[in-house]
Amino acid sequence: MAAMKWWGWGDDGIAFTDADKPALAPFIKENIGLDVRRSTARPVPFDALAVPDPALPPVLRAALEEAVGTGSVSDDPLDRVVHRRGKSLRDLVFQRRGELGRLPDAVVRPGSEKEVAAVLAAALEADAVVIPFGGGTNISGSLDAPSGEQRPVLSVDLGRLDRVLEIDAVSRLARVQAGVFGPALEAQLNASGWTLGHFPDSFTHSTLGGWIATRSSGMQSDKYGDVADLTRGLRAVTPAGTVALRPVPTTSTGPSVREMLLGSEGRLGIITEATVHVHRLPEERVILGYLLPDWERGLEAMHAIAASEATPSVTRVSDAPETQFSFATRKAGSPVDRLKSRVLQALLKRRGIDAGRMCLAFVGYEGSAGHVKAQRKLVGAIVKAHGGLCIGSGPGALYDQKKFDTPYIRDYLLDRGALGDVSETAAPWSALRGLYDEVTGAAARAIAEQGVGGYVMCHLSHSYHAGACLYFTFAINPSGARDALVEYDAVKGAIQQAFVDSGGTLSHHHAVGTEHARWLEQDISPAGVALQRALFDGVDPGANLNPGKITGPARERQPDA
Amino acid sequence: MAAMKWWGWGDDGIAFTDADKPALAPFIKENIGLDVRRSTARPVPFDALAVPDPALPPVLRAALEEAVGTGSVSDDPLDRVVHRRGKSLRDLVFQRRGELGRLPDAVVRPGSEKEVAAVLAAALEADAVVIPFGGGTNISGSLDAPSGEQRPVLSVDLGRLDRVLEIDAVSRLARVQAGVFGPALEAQLNASGWTLGHFPDSFTHSTLGGWIATRSSGMQSDKYGDVADLTRGLRAVTPAGTVALRPVPTTSTGPSVREMLLGSEGRLGIITEATVHVHRLPEERVILGYLLPDWERGLEAMHAIAASEATPSVTRVSDAPETQFSFATRKAGSPVDRLKSRVLQALLKRRGIDAGRMCLAFVGYEGSAGHVKAQRKLVGAIVKAHGGLCIGSGPGALYDQKKFDTPYIRDYLLDRGALGDVSETAAPWSALRGLYDEVTGAAARAIAEQGVGGYVMCHLSHSYHAGACLYFTFAINPSGARDALVEYDAVKGAIQQAFVDSGGTLSHHHAVGTEHARWLEQDISPAGVALQRALFDGVDPGANLNPGKITGPARERQPDA
Repeated sequence: MAAMKWWGWGDDGIAFTDADKPALAPFIKENIGLDVRRSTARPVPFDALAVPDPALPPVLRAALEEAVGTGSVSDDPLDRVVHRRGKSLRDLVFQRRGELGRLPDAVVRPGSEKEVAAVLAAALEADAVVIPFGGGTNISGSLDAPSGEQRPVLSVDLGRLDRVLEIDAVSRLARVQAGVFGPALEAQLNASGWTLGHFPDSFTHSTLGGWIATRSSGMQSDKYGDVADLTRGLRAVTPAGTVALRPVPTTSTGPSVREMLLGSEGRLGIITEATVHVHRLPEERVILGYLLPDWERGLEAMHAIAASEATPSVTRVSDAPETQFSFATRKAGSPVDRLKSRVLQALLKRRGIDAGRMCLAFVGYEGSAGHVKAQRKLVGAIVKAHGGLCIGSGPGALYDQKKFDTPYIRDYLLDRGALGDVSETAAPWSALRGLYDEVTGAAARAIAEQGVGGYVMCHLSHSYHAGACLYFTFAINPSGARDALVEYDAVKGAIQQAFVDSGGTLSHHHAVGTEHARWLEQDISPAGVALQRALFDGVDPGANLNPGKITGPARERQPDA
Repeated sequence: MAAMKWWGWGDDGIAFTDADKPALAPFIKENIGLDVRRSTARPVPFDALAVPDPALPPVLRAALEEAVGTGSVSDDPLDRVVHRRGKSLRDLVFQRRGELGRLPDAVVRPGSEKEVAAVLAAALEADAVVIPFGGGTNISGSLDAPSGEQRPVLSVDLGRLDRVLEIDAVSRLARVQAGVFGPALEAQLNASGWTLGHFPDSFTHSTLGGWIATRSSGMQSDKYGDVADLTRGLRAVTPAGTVALRPVPTTSTGPSVREMLLGSEGRLGIITEATVHVHRLPEERVILGYLLPDWERGLEAMHAIAASEATPSVTRVSDAPETQFSFATRKAGSPVDRLKSRVLQALLKRRGIDAGRMCLAFVGYEGSAGHVKAQRKLVGAIVKAHGGLCIGSGPGALYDQKKFDTPYIRDYLLDRGALGDVSETAAPWSALRGLYDEVTGAAARAIAEQGVGGYVMCHLSHSYHAGACLYFTFAINPSGARDALVEYDAVKGAIQQAFVDSGGTLSHHHAVGTEHARWLEQDISPAGVALQRALFDGVDPGANLNPGKITGPARERQPDA
């Protein structure tokens, strides 16, 4: 795995471009007043960064080198800068500005669970802070050391734990090390005909352990389940010893320790291994595009699909603004594309669908040919009953190819002085329409109050029995009157506050970290947070494990810790 | 709700009988050497019980009466005896013998969440022990006060919280008070066309809150999910305040507080309310019986169904001993039954199925007529490929009617001096065959060592992607050479030990309580138990909440607690 850019998303040399998307520049100009032809802001050069010297006590360094070998304890400046943060919008802005803050003093790379245990023991012995690091893609501030942290800070990179250890073909379970990246995991599984089926937007640059530590969802989670559903056995090194949970389908052994580690963001220890569901690669796989006349009927169609006997692998519908954006990112068309486009226009006109209000939907199907056919029929009838039409497999295939490119757009916007980000929630079906109106209203007010150019768009994804996820993407073109992050915070904060005010959760699958910690009590109640805190404080009385995440800044440390 | 028998299962006047089952007495005689015609043991009469006086400090009594009203604080002897224990085999034996041990000093019946909070506050103020009580059907010792408990002990009966508060038809969610019994809950839901779909064996005498506190599964959980899957929103009164979790479909807000309360057996507080999935009553519902040639092919057929695109509501196959038992409990047949029986014999002969090795299976289907038809076809082909045949809907309908009668059999056996009980586990598909052999072998050895008559039978139920539940039922006819409970413990302990030695969990859905606590570290690892203990100790530093359950006896109490 090549190192992630220290200042942005993905590998060096890969970037989002508008060069092949003729409609995009005018779209951005019109909607947030940004001229994308001018690249106005660049990250400071790496050589210009003021990288503070690491403060690693010699005794701790010796213990770490004893634990993992000299070559796996790094205080290389680039290494430390890459491991400094995740990829939240705030992280990107600070990194690009060269505001490094509290860097880790060392990046440690254990090569086995035993080495992880030795690293943790050495860290606790030295009263150091331990921050587990998978792919570094977290966008909720889960990787930040507290700014004033006086103790040594270690970033523990699990990247050497990258193997599928065993596949139990009868049980359809794979035992996998936690540091494996998405593509390497799928390659190892695909080699013998299996798939995990977990494809978050971050897939190319995130790891199994990271997915588990943040309760990740993927594009096909409607079929495969989110990472909590996929994870059966689990191993983690904690101050209380190594937790080893067997891969039983379910159990009634008290409060679920598996569910304590899921979403724990390093607060309880370091996840080393999981035994996860795997599936045979499907015989058929197709994602169909549909157009619905408007957002209301788009939501209703997804609701009806969830309540039907259909079991699609993907359900997704964009609101009109996101549909417009999707069409604006289309590549320059061939003569055939232009013909198709004219046919589509005619079809929309005949169906009475207004191109300005229509909503683009994707529904995915996987399985045997017969199963896929039956599912398509069930869904097709529902879409038709809601005034929509199928536009075939072309748009879905394109979406499927391009789905991992989305995170690069934030760097493209930052290069041009604009800030783009995402906020997502989940709520009961009955609350979704009102929540959408509250969120878009609150965002519009914040955009107006800040006097910035702003655009907000949304899709529903991940349908469940009783509700769904709404995923908002927004961009602002800062006013220049103040720090752009202040304007960003006003919009992001308005959206998050509207989530919890409207019956939604603060995040469906991006976790809490430091970015969302201030809404946690409003979401799961102060007593709910108290239960989490009791768990964290009990397991980690010295607040050595990724302090400050989820439940906010640590309480006064125990005198005897 | 009539009061449960203080010494046995269910309402007075309802009992299991062999009078209408001509084959049963010879079957029992042959297999455990018990003559069922002689009722040799009866519970001591209630009037002969030495019920100790309650020790409720006047200040605490006053506070409780202030909290819930005078009429809802009871120290009636029968009330206290009924609330003394659950219905584990050990519970039944001790109650029948009149060995009451540590009775609760009062039974308190709050009528609202606010009253629950007031009761908990009064109890903590007085340093009393609080044991939440739903239907009292727990069979793992989850309701026992520690034998030497010196503090006042309160049984908090949630029976007044028995209402469905609200149904969100759009989201298919019902907000329900925790103390409602199964039949009352279904009646309230059915009145407007809904069902929860949760039908554990204890259904008639257990409550929603009890299901949640023990992570219950039901007969149709293959379709509806277990109670963890069904529960979205949740409210509980804890020492840290009232936890209020909104009914979102999923969330990434750190370690799941919902999953901390699920299975918590009163260790964290008192569950007052849940928002649960509800489903429309199905258009069609049928349970078909099948016969498979032997246990191996029975397991393989269930495995193949789980790996197929079929989604049945019930999957269950009995081993040959349980199949024999099922046939032995058939009622005296009509001429038509005898004719059917002869037809079946002929069919079995033609298919080469040995009646001594055959295994009875049930597979349930629910949904639209088309869905049910398609599912039946998929399953039918799998059964046929495994050498089995369908025996129609008659046996399934009978099973469906009689499923809640099973718990009465233990009292029938105890009346005759024999001890019957159940132990269940879950394990990956690849482990099930070996686990079955280990368990039956270990049980047979224990039975031989104790010199008792013994019978062990098993079924697979609850199929998952990666594994299933194996449910063992056993009965012993004690030798008379020692306390029958010693002989029972030897067999039960051998079975449980074989579970954890063979990759299974100590319980799929009967919880830990005090009965299974000694296997917990072997199942979820010592560090896993340490995480649970950290949570319990942090939330309940004074060990006032149902102490001793799940993680075993409380540690030394804090001096300042």
